[in-house]
Amino acid sequence: MPTPNPSAAGSEPGGRPLPDDAVDAVLAAELGDALVTRAADIDPRYFTAYNEPAGVRPRALVRPRSVDDVSRTLALCMRLGQPVVPQGGLTGLARGAVALGGEVVLSMERFAGIEALDAAAGTITVRAGTPLQAVQEAAGAAGFTFGVDLGARGSCQIGGNLATNAGGNRVVQSGTARDQVLGLEVVLANGDVLTSLGKMVKNNTGYDLKHWFIGSEGTLGIITRAVLRLHPRRAARHTALVALDEYDGAVNLLRRLSTRFGNDIGAFEIMWPDFYDFGVKLTGTRSPFADPHPLYALIEHAGFDSGDDGERFAAALTDALDAGAIRDAVIAQSVADARALWAIRECTAEFPVRLDAINFDVSLPIGEIGAFVDRCRAALDRQWPGNVAYFFGHIGDSNLHVTVDGHSLAGVEHHAVYAFVYEMLRPLHGSVSAEHGIGLLKREFLPISRSATELAAMAAIKHALDPHGILNPGKLF
Amino acid sequence: MPTPNPSAAGSEPGGRPLPDDAVDAVLAAELGDALVTRAADIDPRYFTAYNEPAGVRPRALVRPRSVDDVSRTLALCMRLGQPVVPQGGLTGLARGAVALGGEVVLSMERFAGIEALDAAAGTITVRAGTPLQAVQEAAGAAGFTFGVDLGARGSCQIGGNLATNAGGNRVVQSGTARDQVLGLEVVLANGDVLTSLGKMVKNNTGYDLKHWFIGSEGTLGIITRAVLRLHPRRAARHTALVALDEYDGAVNLLRRLSTRFGNDIGAFEIMWPDFYDFGVKLTGTRSPFADPHPLYALIEHAGFDSGDDGERFAAALTDALDAGAIRDAVIAQSVADARALWAIRECTAEFPVRLDAINFDVSLPIGEIGAFVDRCRAALDRQWPGNVAYFFGHIGDSNLHVTVDGHSLAGVEHHAVYAFVYEMLRPLHGSVSAEHGIGLLKREFLPISRSATELAAMAAIKHALDPHGILNPGKLF
Repeated sequence: MPTPNPSAAGSEPGGRPLPDDAVDAVLAAELGDALVTRAADIDPRYFTAYNEPAGVRPRALVRPRSVDDVSRTLALCMRLGQPVVPQGGLTGLARGAVALGGEVVLSMERFAGIEALDAAAGTITVRAGTPLQAVQEAAGAAGFTFGVDLGARGSCQIGGNLATNAGGNRVVQSGTARDQVLGLEVVLANGDVLTSLGKMVKNNTGYDLKHWFIGSEGTLGIITRAVLRLHPRRAARHTALVALDEYDGAVNLLRRLSTRFGNDIGAFEIMWPDFYDFGVKLTGTRSPFADPHPLYALIEHAGFDSGDDGERFAAALTDALDAGAIRDAVIAQSVADARALWAIRECTAEFPVRLDAINFDVSLPIGEIGAFVDRCRAALDRQWPGNVAYFFGHIGDSNLHVTVDGHSLAGVEHHAVYAFVYEMLRPLHGSVSAEHGIGLLKREFLPISRSATELAAMAAIKHALDPHGILNPGKLF
Repeated sequence: MPTPNPSAAGSEPGGRPLPDDAVDAVLAAELGDALVTRAADIDPRYFTAYNEPAGVRPRALVRPRSVDDVSRTLALCMRLGQPVVPQGGLTGLARGAVALGGEVVLSMERFAGIEALDAAAGTITVRAGTPLQAVQEAAGAAGFTFGVDLGARGSCQIGGNLATNAGGNRVVQSGTARDQVLGLEVVLANGDVLTSLGKMVKNNTGYDLKHWFIGSEGTLGIITRAVLRLHPRRAARHTALVALDEYDGAVNLLRRLSTRFGNDIGAFEIMWPDFYDFGVKLTGTRSPFADPHPLYALIEHAGFDSGDDGERFAAALTDALDAGAIRDAVIAQSVADARALWAIRECTAEFPVRLDAINFDVSLPIGEIGAFVDRCRAALDRQWPGNVAYFFGHIGDSNLHVTVDGHSLAGVEHHAVYAFVYEMLRPLHGSVSAEHGIGLLKREFLPISRSATELAAMAAIKHALDPHGILNPGKLF
């Protein structure tokens, strides 16, 4: 029988915590100066979250170059009772990787690189600090596609993508970050290295440990390496912008297209008119439609270049038009056309600059999203007349984004807006975080989406794997 | 902060265990005669595993009709310190649902039926006792396909499929049972009901609890209901039997077809000649090929009836033939043709009758399976000259099956054959169970596939969720 509690085995945290200004010296003495940056010397980028002012300076910065470095760091911190914040590219939107005061930051940026690509198995073995874009490029060079893509691809790290179970643009086709993982290596709170780097699709030998850590936001262990599934490259992409009468029509269109093309449908992005008009304005283009419409869908067919993919896709949209299922459609005739259509949807990159953005990333059963948008907009208008809000989402993934512009709400705290919108999800059993995670930002709203029994089960597991609570304390729970 | 340990909360197991013959009376008194069958009255089918003689009579049989019945049963058993064996259709191949002596059997057969089908979301909500085939039929009636299929479809139950993370015939296209689950309801050891029945594809609100229980073989909780994902129906199926020079050619062919058809490839089953010849003999047909070949692949293209799927599939195989990538191919011209080809692969249904079957269900990285088969066959021949062994598998899923006929090994214990073959997996980090699970049968071989650290982590989790060890004791661990 194995030891019942791996994290408790062999080490107990030392007596009282060290004084704040002694931690970096102790770490440097035990781990070496090459690994440890003293508190005073830490560059502010290690304590500054995306689009925020600099936060709290950590007690020390550790930048491991190997799995063993991570293991030694955690074993030492556990002995010292020293909290640790794991850090990837710091591009998360839920403040899950920022220090709150008194922590050591463990950045994975130096443990980067691709260790292997197995073309027969269709897998890539990567280190946690590897930027997402580097994974995508290595996959592409071997004739594959990696299943996760998102705006921060150049600076986010694959370890962070897995720790937060990132979503992004390809979920409707390839699933979330979780669905890309075949094998995972994790360092536990006590420094034990849990290596499950199998390349096999099927492996029913006990609990599937990787799923315990994916999406756990660094609270159960630190991901060091992963074996990721690659997908055959879909070379033929056809993009259309469709105008619709109403939300239910969009759901029907998605079903209609899925029945005809399966998961060759690579994107299905819905934009309500406020968002669409704002996107058109921000991109400085003009709408390809002469008249305004109640709803817009940006749809991508991503296939294997069988020769007539484009014709089939166009025929399906023509059929939908003939059947009265859609109002109008334009199909991109060139890469430039397609980019122009995508630019409208991707105007969100400008949100941090143009807006005082209060962002929501919620999920609901797909059939309920349309009615929720109507109710939410009406409720916001009653509560804060004159508010400006943008609704859009990956509805194929049941994911709705809402951005309220704080500039339109003079004197209203962001927190009041969060509480107001999240509260509307409660009766619908909606999720307060579809893809961004909980981190620090949504912690207080977690009970809207999770029952007391669920939260208690999560806490039991947290306690089992990190009994002294040194891993990313204050996040998620 | 939630209670740190849900299973320990509120109840401690009572002092010493009840005498064997008192348990059923106590259960009947507390839960009611309608729920509880006395030990003496239990039909042997509740203690007889698939294709085995009757096993050990349980102390009592409980057949709940509701989630609350399950909850009350577990709360009581926890108080009594009474071990419980959860039971679905008892079709598992690893003896995970049999009683070992002293347990209460909890059969989910009365908590069956489909609660809802949401066509917009593409989901079906089912009770654990529902037979797999009933789920498939309900999906089909609404124009969908359910992603799991296996031979025992008529008698296995969806709860058991999820508890064991069943594989089967469609994994290459739709993934395993785990990949079909959006929401799950589980009753914990102390009777707490953990309800996470969301229909959303994306929901990053804390740990993804469903993944803890899927594949845990009833050792962490009892699955009561699930929300399952449905797939658009693939109406157009085209079946081919391909002859190949060697294993690497099969891997290349799979890659070649995936690059052209994505996951329209619905099956890719490899048969080595011993298996193929035996299958042809058992089905009483004749091989569609005039000459014998070193390897055979049964391939299915399952698409959406775009009109020329069959022509495209045939063209791809013709191209492969022209390129020297395959030796020969026949394409089924009718449903009867396709069935005749599948009958060769499905001759395994006859194995329990015709053979003294010693079955292996292992997984390896796909690129290593061919060499493993050669080494394994050679090693078996050295160890037991004259042995008869059949090699076949879902190699697209990295899954190899081997069946050794015990009739060809006079006086050799099955256990010696298991140990001999499993030991060959150790240096390759292979899995001793790709899809069948561990149960009782493979428990001693689990350390071949899992490290001490992995096993310790599993034990820590088991202890956190079932501190008194009442759920399916002796299985898996």
